[in-house]
Amino acid sequence: MFYHVKELQYHAKPEKPDPLYAKKLQEILGGQFGEISVALQYLFQGWSVRGDGKYKDLLMDTGAEELAHIEMLATMIARLLDGAPVGDLEKAAKDPIIGAILGGMNPQHAIVSGLGALPADSVGNRWTADYIIASGNLLADFRANLNAESQGRLQAVRLYEEATDSGVKDMLSWLIARDTMHQNQWVAAIYELESKENIVVPSTFPKELEKREVSYALFNLSRGNESATGRWANGQSIDGQGTFQYVEQPVPFAPEPKLTPAPPYIHNTLPSILKDGTNLMPPSKY
Amino acid sequence: MFYHVKELQYHAKPEKPDPLYAKKLQEILGGQFGEISVALQYLFQGWSVRGDGKYKDLLMDTGAEELAHIEMLATMIARLLDGAPVGDLEKAAKDPIIGAILGGMNPQHAIVSGLGALPADSVGNRWTADYIIASGNLLADFRANLNAESQGRLQAVRLYEEATDSGVKDMLSWLIARDTMHQNQWVAAIYELESKENIVVPSTFPKELEKREVSYALFNLSRGNESATGRWANGQSIDGQGTFQYVEQPVPFAPEPKLTPAPPYIHNTLPSILKDGTNLMPPSKY
Amino acid sequence: MFYHVKELQYHAKPEKPDPLYAKKLQEILGGQFGEISVALQYLFQGWSVRGDGKYKDLLMDTGAEELAHIEMLATMIARLLDGAPVGDLEKAAKDPIIGAILGGMNPQHAIVSGLGALPADSVGNRWTADYIIASGNLLADFRANLNAESQGRLQAVRLYEEATDSGVKDMLSWLIARDTMHQNQWVAAIYELESKENIVVPSTFPKELEKREVSYALFNLSRGNESATGRWANGQSIDGQGTFQYVEQPVPFAPEPKLTPAPPYIHNTLPSILKDGTNLMPPSKY
Amino acid sequence: MFYHVKELQYHAKPEKPDPLYAKKLQEILGGQFGEISVALQYLFQGWSVRGDGKYKDLLMDTGAEELAHIEMLATMIARLLDGAPVGDLEKAAKDPIIGAILGGMNPQHAIVSGLGALPADSVGNRWTADYIIASGNLLADFRANLNAESQGRLQAVRLYEEATDSGVKDMLSWLIARDTMHQNQWVAAIYELESKENIVVPSTFPKELEKREVSYALFNLSRGNESATGRWANGQSIDGQGTFQYVEQPVPFAPEPKLTPAPPYIHNTLPSILKDGTNLMPPSKY
Amino acid sequence: MFYHVKELQYHAKPEKPDPLYAKKLQEILGGQFGEISVALQYLFQGWSVRGDGKYKDLLMDTGAEELAHIEMLATMIARLLDGAPVGDLEKAAKDPIIGAILGGMNPQHAIVSGLGALPADSVGNRWTADYIIASGNLLADFRANLNAESQGRLQAVRLYEEATDSGVKDMLSWLIARDTMHQNQWVAAIYELESKENIVVPSTFPKELEKREVSYALFNLSRGNESATGRWANGQSIDGQGTFQYVEQPVPFAPEPKLTPAPPYIHNTLPSILKDGTNLMPPSKY
Amino acid sequence: MFYHVKELQYHAKPEKPDPLYAKKLQEILGGQFGEISVALQYLFQGWSVRGDGKYKDLLMDTGAEELAHIEMLATMIARLLDGAPVGDLEKAAKDPIIGAILGGMNPQHAIVSGLGALPADSVGNRWTADYIIASGNLLADFRANLNAESQGRLQAVRLYEEATDSGVKDMLSWLIARDTMHQNQWVAAIYELESKENIVVPSTFPKELEKREVSYALFNLSRGNESATGRWANGQSIDGQGTFQYVEQPVPFAPEPKLTPAPPYIHNTLPSILKDGTNLMPPSKY
Repeated sequence: MFYHVKELQYHAKPEKPDPLYAKKLQEILGGQFGEISVALQYLFQGWSVRGDGKYKDLLMDTGAEELAHIEMLATMIARLLDGAPVGDLEKAAKDPIIGAILGGMNPQHAIVSGLGALPADSVGNRWTADYIIASGNLLADFRANLNAESQGRLQAVRLYEEATDSGVKDMLSWLIARDTMHQNQWVAAIYELESKENIVVPSTFPKELEKREVSYALFNLSRGNESATGRWANGQSIDGQGTFQYVEQPVPFAPEPKLTPAPPYIHNTLPSILKDGTNLMPPSKY
Repeated sequence: MFYHVKELQYHAKPEKPDPLYAKKLQEILGGQFGEISVALQYLFQGWSVRGDGKYKDLLMDTGAEELAHIEMLATMIARLLDGAPVGDLEKAAKDPIIGAILGGMNPQHAIVSGLGALPADSVGNRWTADYIIASGNLLADFRANLNAESQGRLQAVRLYEEATDSGVKDMLSWLIARDTMHQNQWVAAIYELESKENIVVPSTFPKELEKREVSYALFNLSRGNESATGRWANGQSIDGQGTFQYVEQPVPFAPEPKLTPAPPYIHNTLPSILKDGTNLMPPSKY
Repeated sequence: MFYHVKELQYHAKPEKPDPLYAKKLQEILGGQFGEISVALQYLFQGWSVRGDGKYKDLLMDTGAEELAHIEMLATMIARLLDGAPVGDLEKAAKDPIIGAILGGMNPQHAIVSGLGALPADSVGNRWTADYIIASGNLLADFRANLNAESQGRLQAVRLYEEATDSGVKDMLSWLIARDTMHQNQWVAAIYELESKENIVVPSTFPKELEKREVSYALFNLSRGNESATGRWANGQSIDGQGTFQYVEQPVPFAPEPKLTPAPPYIHNTLPSILKDGTNLMPPSKY
Repeated sequence: MFYHVKELQYHAKPEKPDPLYAKKLQEILGGQFGEISVALQYLFQGWSVRGDGKYKDLLMDTGAEELAHIEMLATMIARLLDGAPVGDLEKAAKDPIIGAILGGMNPQHAIVSGLGALPADSVGNRWTADYIIASGNLLADFRANLNAESQGRLQAVRLYEEATDSGVKDMLSWLIARDTMHQNQWVAAIYELESKENIVVPSTFPKELEKREVSYALFNLSRGNESATGRWANGQSIDGQGTFQYVEQPVPFAPEPKLTPAPPYIHNTLPSILKDGTNLMPPSKY
Repeated sequence: MFYHVKELQYHAKPEKPDPLYAKKLQEILGGQFGEISVALQYLFQGWSVRGDGKYKDLLMDTGAEELAHIEMLATMIARLLDGAPVGDLEKAAKDPIIGAILGGMNPQHAIVSGLGALPADSVGNRWTADYIIASGNLLADFRANLNAESQGRLQAVRLYEEATDSGVKDMLSWLIARDTMHQNQWVAAIYELESKENIVVPSTFPKELEKREVSYALFNLSRGNESATGRWANGQSIDGQGTFQYVEQPVPFAPEPKLTPAPPYIHNTLPSILKDGTNLMPPSKY
Repeated sequence: MFYHVKELQYHAKPEKPDPLYAKKLQEILGGQFGEISVALQYLFQGWSVRGDGKYKDLLMDTGAEELAHIEMLATMIARLLDGAPVGDLEKAAKDPIIGAILGGMNPQHAIVSGLGALPADSVGNRWTADYIIASGNLLADFRANLNAESQGRLQAVRLYEEATDSGVKDMLSWLIARDTMHQNQWVAAIYELESKENIVVPSTFPKELEKREVSYALFNLSRGNESATGRWANGQSIDGQGTFQYVEQPVPFAPEPKLTPAPPYIHNTLPSILKDGTNLMPPSKY
């Protein structure tokens, strides 16, 4: 159950409006690695933990925080949109800044959301739950989380570089710091689980059931041997269970497949036509 | 540039058809962590590497292999669909197996693809590039890859548990082994980059520009202190740049936001109405 | 900013597992009118209110509650999935119940989420922000909310009818009651705004700028005059600004449009070919 | 069955081309509340009405009209795109208007549709049937319709404000007037159904099966009591069946849920690891 | 502008309900090649024709007919859903037919649409305008139309094979016949345009601007020479402008690309790290 | 199985960067008819061919080539993005070119992909497998392929017209030439199959099972007789099996449908309410 207070976790106030930047900032609100993604990803993972304790609590702590970040970004974007220009391109075009804004702002910020934030990314794609991950295996999921915080901090940093407004930068410096913590925390949790299990997810699948002969082989399928010099091609495997090998000329292990013809009620191309292949085409009419 | 040979990387032949299992197996062909996802993810990352050498080669090696895995799965699914029943439910229902198949198979396997594999997951959602990640920052992206291989191997293992066909199990044991390698290789690459940079992505953003006071703080936003006992709440941070702290009673750092009214041409609810709020509602008509 | 407590707003415990029902119940978690939709819809509306006071508070109150409902449903679904069968269809088919389950459950509940709830609807479509609405005009948005609660309660009631488990019914009877409140509250808010503005959204657009001659006309475009007997075709208009009229034989007000040919650099079909239209087709080759 | 005449329901001719405005105007053709949405929404509702008479006829009348509005908008957009510039940015940039157009127009209007309208919104998202609603319960659906006409008219009005072309304004003033009618007609139909049933959808669910104790309670889940002063928190409920109450300090009604561990064949994190949680992490390697 | 009559173009009445078949039949209503797709495809093409005459009229004739087919299918599906079972799996499972239905019917047909048709395909994916095509070049678009009618008729035929109900078969035999006509008509229109232009779309691009040396070459990129025996590898090209050639051992025409490092403000992996690639990884902790 | 070489099939090097053009060029990489679409379409068709020989080989040859085209476009786009400007709008706006770029470039090219290509189209929609087609019926699918190459070449030509960079034009002239070949080859394959089967897909459905009386009729459903003058309305049908006829005044063949009321557990609008329709609405409160 959730309680809301109307104060913000941190300031979200720009010096002045900037509709073009509002459009860009949508990326870390409603994009693939925006705050909606991490909030719902952590909450869904937490709700699915089949057991109690610190991992579940950590997920719920962080999920609740990300809701606050959605709120900060929604507030910032609404303020960046204050007084967004609409209207007469000819007049506006005399002022190149307004021209760029009219050409570049997200038109839905005026037409659809009435100067509010959208649950969408910087090009206007609506957020989708295709972005989120919750498998019930915490080592797998914490890796998803580490990736999300890595991509998210990278995007926030790039937006910082694109910003000139001190209020925007101030807020981003908060979000970037929180992403530093979140990367640290998921790495800590990952190390702990890896030390109890193994680095390979899931650790509970019996080794003898996999084809061990290719569990540590790098197949050189892109011509050139640069990858042969990497750690992944030499020495003990990272999981300590095998030895990396480099297969310079990988070959197929199975013959060309031949598929059985479909039954007549499927109405695929008839086997007789496929087999025969005689060219009955009449002379070109051109 | 790519060359194709018609032989398969590994066998993809079931003992006998099973349309219901074909539907499930679609998950690791066209689902969020299916082979289409990893193939295109690695290739797009490889094409975007702005520099040469072993990382790019590793990406292209692995991307090319994943194309072969799409091919194996497409072949296996086509064979699992051989002779899939269609038609008369009443007759079929006398045989409970056929009844379950008629109720459970993906109808598009007959109607749309003519007993071929679909570029879709196990519930029939078509594959979307929303699943893939390529940021240009290799540490971030290798984490995405490690996650993809972790989720993917987990799904393959679950499908192995659901399988009874020895041919299907044989193929899955190959794919599971390859995922073992791929997890190992991305971990190796991650360790290497982390040791050169730092665990926090991107490592190139100046520390002093983030709010360092919250870079290592865990906010207890879900009541209960279980998460206080984790490594993430105690001791030196994993990046070696700070000390974890646990904030038991986190508070807002900023006041409740007040947004400026929208200009009249936006036609939002008028400020006078919002401010006033007088209840003028006539007596209920009920 | 949000605080979470781990207790549930209300009980979410089935008597016994039922994977098939778990699949259906996903509709009101992650479907078009599921709890994710209303939670994010109310929160986004609240964050965008450009003014303070009771409407914003009401939105935030209700949005926070809907988060608790997502949590209840995620918990219920996880429990309905306890011990979901996977595996051998032949054995299972001897038990028609298991056969139906194997044929009918959402395969991603086992393969993808590991017996956890999915952010998806009852057929497996992932949730999308295309479902939500926040325009900045509260009368418009409260109508969206009333619709969402009407559709949502209707779906919950239908699921109640499909349920046999007393635990499931108990939880649904809570959600249905809350939807009763939420329909009541949005109607109350709508009446209040309608009495201050007018029923037509937006009320701030000058009447004289619309084509008043067709503002109250019902065009009979589907043959048959049944609709002529409705209130909407007779008497004063509901907004009190005009008189309904029924146009029995509606005609076009504008001529057939003629579009200018595209410039050559667009490479559309040439005007000469369109205009001429001479049939130069050679005799059929069949 | 449908018959088409080539004349337009109303004029759709701009004074002059404006590719940037064409992009914006797409919103009410192919956006969430565009004409495709209302046309297909009304038609699907009509086709599903299980009974005859005036409601079905009204739906078909209006659905047929919305098809004519798609046609008008498609025509207007094609004309706004006449002679859209492509090509040399350097030359174009000397003319700031052309620069803004080149930066801002939808590139698919040239590349994909060849200066025709797209079935897409103002940012280029293709139309999706996720937007439409047809439940078989007419009171629920008429509320969906009233919302659609409210959002749609709001967007048309905002586009009117952004327009400078007299031909565009003329067409919009037609569409705005029609939305006035359509809001009036759905309100009339809603009042009629509400007076026969009740305001709560569905009216056919027995009251005693819902948790009546929370059917009229407003839970104060966002700190601050502004919402306590609303009609929704005081007096008889709008449905006349209860009394609104304001719950200032809402508490959970159910304990923290404990989920059963997943069976081994799911390969989630093991209960032993979740329960134990011992920190076995080796000393940081940094 | 459109006029509707309530009579159906053809009968749409099954002998008896069949919810499982209703789910399948959705494919040709709301799938990729369903009636919504062809209706909107032809109408959008027609509205975009920049010229008048027979092609535009043909498109509008056929588009209007496809609207009638949506209507027939929506009616048929509603009737197939009459009295669809919901409820108690245990009881139902005693009747294997009902068990299969409960396991296999689209749950949204009961929960969401109230026994009405959905704008979705046979697995429940909502219709999307991603399916439709209108380019402004009629030869290209008529090929899209011929494909749509070919795929659509194939699907209708497969559904005919899966049907046992004489009413369903009767309706499908109508739709299949109409698809026969529509394939014939688009072929006729294609031949006419090909004879005026050429088979290569667009015919208006100057030959000398393309790399003519590869305009008729088949590159053998999949090992094995079976494709060398086809008409496409021998003799005059079909467009009459060149000679087909078979390139047995195709080679790259350009060197390996080297991309410039990204500027620092993008925070990609640093060139020094990419170039160096030294393995600094500490000894494995396992 | 696939092998990759790092050399490109053809040059992909612009004279100089152009982020705005990079955005547009995405259309033929990740749009509906971009290279991802044709690559995966041909490969999926090839993998599903249930028989061997030249058609399968042709599909695999061409699919493998299209992978090389994705690679070329990804490389070209990365180079067009070199040094893409971010940042200060006010400064930038002094240079109208930079202003147009800032307003018009795809913001994800900087924020998300770090100056790499995206698997998306020119407006930023991510690629989806909804675009691709593989039915198992080769004549149907080759028509899909011919359409894809027609639309794709048309788009490439339009992009050529929009280009000023000689490197971009050079690459496009390669791709356009390859599309010339691919249109030729699919036409050749289509003619061959048509001459063995018939033009109507599928050719295996018994004629007597379709309603032959409407297999060659053109219904004039859009007022105006222009379409009566086409080949499709006169003479022998193209398939040689009938005679085209023009139905000037098409009428319905079936009565208005009456649907049975839904059972009570569906909670649709009650039949009594639908039937009665009495207007009980109280006097308007306005």
